[in-house]
Parts: sequence; structure tokens; C-alpha cells
Amino acid sequence: MRDIGYAGRRVVAFGGGHGLYATLSALRILTRNITAIVTVADDGGSSGRLRNEMEILPPGDLRMALSALCDDSQWGLTWRSVLQHRFTTSGELNGHSLGNLLIAAIWQEIGDPVAGLDLVGQLLTTHGRVLPMSAVPLSLTAHIERDGVVETVHGQSVIAKLGEAISQVSLSPANPPARPEALRAIDEADWVIFGPGSWYTSVIPHLLVPELRGAVAHTAAKRMLVVNLAPDLETRAMSSADLVRSFHAHAPDMALDIVLVDPSVVGDHADLREAVRRCGAELLVWPVKRDVAKHDPLTLAAALREAFETA
Amino acid sequence: MRDIGYAGRRVVAFGGGHGLYATLSALRILTRNITAIVTVADDGGSSGRLRNEMEILPPGDLRMALSALCDDSQWGLTWRSVLQHRFTTSGELNGHSLGNLLIAAIWQEIGDPVAGLDLVGQLLTTHGRVLPMSAVPLSLTAHIERDGVVETVHGQSVIAKLGEAISQVSLSPANPPARPEALRAIDEADWVIFGPGSWYTSVIPHLLVPELRGAVAHTAAKRMLVVNLAPDLETRAMSSADLVRSFHAHAPDMALDIVLVDPSVVGDHADLREAVRRCGAELLVWPVKRDVAKHDPLTLAAALREAFETA
Repeated sequence: MRDIGYAGRRVVAFGGGHGLYATLSALRILTRNITAIVTVADDGGSSGRLRNEMEILPPGDLRMALSALCDDSQWGLTWRSVLQHRFTTSGELNGHSLGNLLIAAIWQEIGDPVAGLDLVGQLLTTHGRVLPMSAVPLSLTAHIERDGVVETVHGQSVIAKLGEAISQVSLSPANPPARPEALRAIDEADWVIFGPGSWYTSVIPHLLVPELRGAVAHTAAKRMLVVNLAPDLETRAMSSADLVRSFHAHAPDMALDIVLVDPSVVGDHADLREAVRRCGAELLVWPVKRDVAKHDPLTLAAALREAFETA
Repeated sequence: MRDIGYAGRRVVAFGGGHGLYATLSALRILTRNITAIVTVADDGGSSGRLRNEMEILPPGDLRMALSALCDDSQWGLTWRSVLQHRFTTSGELNGHSLGNLLIAAIWQEIGDPVAGLDLVGQLLTTHGRVLPMSAVPLSLTAHIERDGVVETVHGQSVIAKLGEAISQVSLSPANPPARPEALRAIDEADWVIFGPGSWYTSVIPHLLVPELRGAVAHTAAKRMLVVNLAPDLETRAMSSADLVRSFHAHAPDMALDIVLVDPSVVGDHADLREAVRRCGAELLVWPVKRDVAKHDPLTLAAALREAFETA
């Protein structure tokens, strides 16, 4: 922990995949008190195979978050790359991630997914806690408009690669239960942070868990949305203002305090300002990227610190 | 490390499976300077599948040795049971051991098996080093006599369950290369220990690697053989004297210093004494079992300490 005075700040970060990895890598510089709340709707690759074979939560996004929270010692860095290792074989292990297998093994040993993730965290001496966004495995459905006709597409791994404008996503089972540990973390937080990340498969799904959405709406914590640095297949034609509007449309009752946007993706400034204003938030335009269109841990940490001081 | 004055003693233990696990658990009480040299001829179960799928050394016996060397903190004990976890699923992971997968993943990451095992040891902060008995995966062949006819049986996993009198075992490739790290450990040791364990599949195979046998024959270290507590499928009709003779027959040029035998399996005392004398060794009859026919770490440690002081 660098001694910059934020060590005790309690931050909850929602997300999944590389976006959450970036947020957690930044937060690790700012505070010791991190809770990641992670999507569990993945149905592709190693995670998809494991959830089918063992009837468990898909571990992949949870493993990414745990990796991000490994410490910066040589030991921690080695564990991080071992967790992320994917087998390349000519057989049945091909494509499996070692970290996914570790989580799955511990879940078989001790049953409860949260107790299991806490144990993995202890074994890896991670800096912070990783929780699933729901107590049960979820499936994602997207509604897209193709030539004026609404079409329904099932499965997170398919949705992420659709490359078409998504109007809405929904979860199955609808209204899944949250874990009480997640609700408590939100309740006790100083800040809750959404984004960046795959918008419809990693950021928005959290808003579709009523208990989580309710807890975020009612916590005394400040709420921040970090907007993506570049469009992806899920958000090809969308401006930053569009992203903010789509977030708000999925949780109209949830006010935000800060929307953080990199100068490079402000676009139509007036439009963005208006979208942010409708969420009840302040717009913070602050550089978060370095060279490529990826959130850099240090610059994102600087931006988050700015946000913490602004709101 | 308990402060009983043996912390610096350099001990090399040869073996595989549960026998080596027992020796290492006992040695961990006596010294900090342990090198396990481990059979790599397994072709069954998780190890057999992994060596076929990934063209690697079978990791199972190496994983058992690493587990034995995990420390006794809550953290170390948890890692030990996680390493030993076997997946129970309805699919392709069924029967795989998490520790085997961890070793295999690290071997894919860094290539060299010894560097990989050293890294696993660092990640688990094991007390001692685990080395393979050969640089290449091995296959075991047993020669049995059935109704006066010599029959040849291939494959460690088959041999271990034969239940027939084995007259000899051999390795394929014949004369496999040892790892230089293993030769150096033998050269620098104060003690080298063979047994207990599955006699023809875990104890004898080390004698069939010429470089290892040569290093043991020429080291200034003392040499000990720990005799099994109970017959198993490989040694059903064999007395302790028979075990000693079969060991000697596979390495007639290698003198021993101590043969350690539990009082319960001395059998024909004169016969045992004579078999031990032919190996050039002293017979140490010392209790090493507790309730069941398994070497108990503490009683075995006490017996090993006695042997260290006797020779």
C-alpha cells in the first residue's frame, strides 16, 4: 500500500473480465479495502464447460478479479500468471484456465461459493475480497433490433460477439438472489464503482439483480460510472453519452455521483453533459488512458483519486 | 523446524506415492534440508492421462511429495489438501488432481520440469526440493513367474495391481538419463534413504537409473533402506528378508549402512540378519508404526533419528 491516505477507503467495484481487472488494478494502488462484485453469467470457454460439468458458478470472471488482487511481490506476480495460464493441449484440458480449475476444486472441497472464494483469496493472499453478483449461475439474454424487428439472443458468449446494436439485456433466472456478503459490502462502502468493461455483458448485468440495484440505490456510498475508452462489438455505434443513457435506462431509480470520461471519448460535449445530468451526476473528464485504448492502472488510479476528492 | 539439532542434515529420499509421503513427513520434523527424488513411471489415472495429453512427466508422485513438504501452518495445510483434491464430475475433469494440473500448467509456462517444480515449491513455500528421478517419462515392465513360465507385464498401474510374485522390473527407455540436480543432491547428502513404499513400482525403479545408482554407490553419504510394514499386492508372499534381498539383487554393487525394520515384520530373525549382512548393512529393529500398518511421521522420525545416530 502506497502511503497516499486512502488505505481505509471502502470501495466496491462491479464488473467482470478485463474492465474489472483494470479497475481493481487501479484500486489496489489507492486502498486496502476492496470488494469486487463479479458477473456470473459467462457460458463460453473454460467457464462455460466448468459450469456445465460441475453445476457451479462460472469461475472465469471471478478468477480474473482474484488475479488482479494478487500482490506485486515476485510471489504474487507469479501466482497471477499461473492463475491466468490456459492449457494448450490436444485433449480434454485444452483451453481450461488453471485459476478456474483451482476455484472449482476449492468449491468441490468446501461447498459454499463465497467461503470458497475467501479461501482462494487467503491461499493467494489477495488484497481484497471477490464475491459473485448472484448466489446462482445466470444466463444472459439480449434484445437487438435488426431491420426494425426485435430479435432475442441467448448466451453471454454469443452476445459479446454479436456486433449488433443491443437495446436491452435480461437475466435468467429473472430477479436472481444476491449474496448477503455483497449487500453488506455495498451498504458499508464509501464508494461503489461501475465500469469500465464489456457494457452489456459485464457492466449492465449487475443492474438486473434487484437486491444489488436496491442496495446501491440505498447505500450512503458515492456512486461512480467509469465510461469505456473505445467502442467494442457490443457498443460499436455508441457514444459515451449513449453508454451513460443505456446505463441509466437499466436503473432509472439509481442516481450517480460521478461519471468519469477520458477526454478522447467525450464526443458531443453538450450531449454527454445532458446524459450525465439526467443521472444526477457530475461529469469528470480526466485522462485515464496511456498509449492504447486500455485503462492504465496508474492513470486510472489518479483519476479515481480525483473523483474521490471531487464528490 | 523443531530445535533437535538435525536442521542442517542433508537428506535425499527416494520413492513415490504414499511411502515417500511418509518418509518426507517424518524428515520434515528432523531437517530443513530435504531432497525428494521421485518416480516418473506412473501411467494410470490423472498422471497417465496428463502424460499422454501433454507429453510431460507424470506429475502425481511429484505432487504427493510437494504436498508432504507443505508446512504445518493453516495456510500450508490448506494448500496440502487443495493439491490433493480430486475432481468428481460427470465429465472430462473427473479423477484429475488439482495439484497435478498446477504442476502441468507451470510446466507449460516455463518448460523445464525441474525449474517448474522449484517454482511450484516456491509458490507453496515447501520445505525442501522435489526432483524427478529421470529427465524423461518412463515406463515400467515387470517379469513375473506364472507356473514356471516367465511372463512380461507392461505399465506401472497394471503391475501395482497384479497380485503375483514379481521377479524383476525394468524401465523403458532403458538407462534413462538422471537430472544433474538429483546427482548433485546425492553427492552432497549426509544420508540417502530408500523405502518404504510400493516395492517394485516406487522403491526399486530408482536403482534402474544407472546414473542415480552410480551416484548413490559413490556418494560419501550413509545409505538407509526402510522396509515396509505390511505386504501389499506387489509383495504378498515376501518377508522383510525377501524385500532386502530383492533390493540388493537390483543393485548388487551398492552397499547399505542401515536397514530399518519394524519389530512386527522381523519374521525369521536369522534370515533377515543374513540378508542385511549381505548388503553390508547394520540391522536396526525399531518401532515405526503406531496403530495401523502405516509409517507414522513421528515414530518414523524417531526411528530415523536413531538411525542417524547409530551409523
